[in-house]
Amino acid sequence: MTRRTLRLTLEYDGTRFAGWQVQPGERTVQGELERALGVLLRHPARVRVAGRTDAGVHALGQVCTVRTEQAVAVERVLRGLNGILPRDVAVSAVDEVDPAFDPRFDARGKHYRYRVLARRARSAVDRARCWHVWEPLDRGAIQGALDHLVGTHHFGAFRAADCPSKDPVKELRVATLTPREGEILELDFVGSGFLKQMVRILVGTVIEVGRGAREVSSIPALIESRDRTRAGRTAPPQGLFLVRVLYGGGEDGGGG
Amino acid sequence: MTRRTLRLTLEYDGTRFAGWQVQPGERTVQGELERALGVLLRHPARVRVAGRTDAGVHALGQVCTVRTEQAVAVERVLRGLNGILPRDVAVSAVDEVDPAFDPRFDARGKHYRYRVLARRARSAVDRARCWHVWEPLDRGAIQGALDHLVGTHHFGAFRAADCPSKDPVKELRVATLTPREGEILELDFVGSGFLKQMVRILVGTVIEVGRGAREVSSIPALIESRDRTRAGRTAPPQGLFLVRVLYGGGEDGGGG
Repeated sequence: MTRRTLRLTLEYDGTRFAGWQVQPGERTVQGELERALGVLLRHPARVRVAGRTDAGVHALGQVCTVRTEQAVAVERVLRGLNGILPRDVAVSAVDEVDPAFDPRFDARGKHYRYRVLARRARSAVDRARCWHVWEPLDRGAIQGALDHLVGTHHFGAFRAADCPSKDPVKELRVATLTPREGEILELDFVGSGFLKQMVRILVGTVIEVGRGAREVSSIPALIESRDRTRAGRTAPPQGLFLVRVLYGGGEDGGGG
Repeated sequence: MTRRTLRLTLEYDGTRFAGWQVQPGERTVQGELERALGVLLRHPARVRVAGRTDAGVHALGQVCTVRTEQAVAVERVLRGLNGILPRDVAVSAVDEVDPAFDPRFDARGKHYRYRVLARRARSAVDRARCWHVWEPLDRGAIQGALDHLVGTHHFGAFRAADCPSKDPVKELRVATLTPREGEILELDFVGSGFLKQMVRILVGTVIEVGRGAREVSSIPALIESRDRTRAGRTAPPQGLFLVRVLYGGGEDGGGG
């Protein structure tokens, strides 16, 4: 039998998950996925993921791999998993990849999106997919703050206290605000890598700028400080989407 | 005490409602709203609505009115209701209107939107807000079918068997397909009025055209037939949104 590596591209609604990673007694995306893979492949399955997501965070194009000796066709894995998985997780693509492919270490970057609902009244339809900010926001100031954040920086001011990363220097390639229909502001972040809760702390900080509680011009000194206590609050999880994991050449993660 | 008429603009996620209208033993939007109004206004409250929606159908800009003798400010009604209502209903605007204003009979038209997810794999994040059609769709054919539907017609072929309307002649002003990000097709319908399940039957029919199961050129004869059994299946409710109710002059419903 040949050992095969299958790459899965996943979409999930994070609302009812305690995040990606398996935890005893909790409903997690990894847990549901490994259970479905076990049923389909008829052997215990363990997946490797491009990057964990926290409780409440969504994904449009998460990527993970699983190893199997089963000769099942990728098309059957796709349809089979979508038949077994609960409705809040879906597989959008399955590819057979080189056994050396590693979804985490081969990633060249990630694209995250954060959705802010900028209006007085709260939303019913979108309540689990945005952060409702009712104060008036200065969009130009938010984009000004985002512009300061683009570049290669030590992002120590923008990571969770328990972030385990040994390399807080990351390249933020894109940080852009786009107004969308229905008073939604989309903040897109593309970077080489992201620290724990980095996007949510960046968003919490630039929204403070948008509210007038912090100056655009204060951002460079904040980055320099590497001091988490000087940055803004962590924006809530339900506005955050992992849109896509970027791989080089033919290893593009797809599904975004 | 003065008798006042307040107009409420509402957003709701239809997923967990048995539709708009109060029914014994069922959770309905009207039921939740009247309960919240009773708490806020401290008297039993009955609302009048622009148009009922079915179970599973969403609204971004539903309009209804309530009468009260309480002198409470509209701003306090807005905030108060949003504090009392469950998370899947929100009030986006409250205005005091002329007592003669009738949300149903004064409506000059309505704007509905239907969202189709056109791709192989099902969606997790959007599952309660679209109809997943996995077969390839010819967008040009769908728009061709929609073009035939625009105009003033007897829409008898496109209404539920138990539709109570005595006037099946309606003017469909706009019927347009717009591709959106993430393989979503939005079908927008603006018309003078809509029969029971009309939008969902129109969508079910034009999607059959898009799949190649029905000819674009067959639509005029289908309209002429006034025969429900010759039209397509009723598209599922979760793709449908009441976007806005249109009023003339200063009575615009807002909130869309």
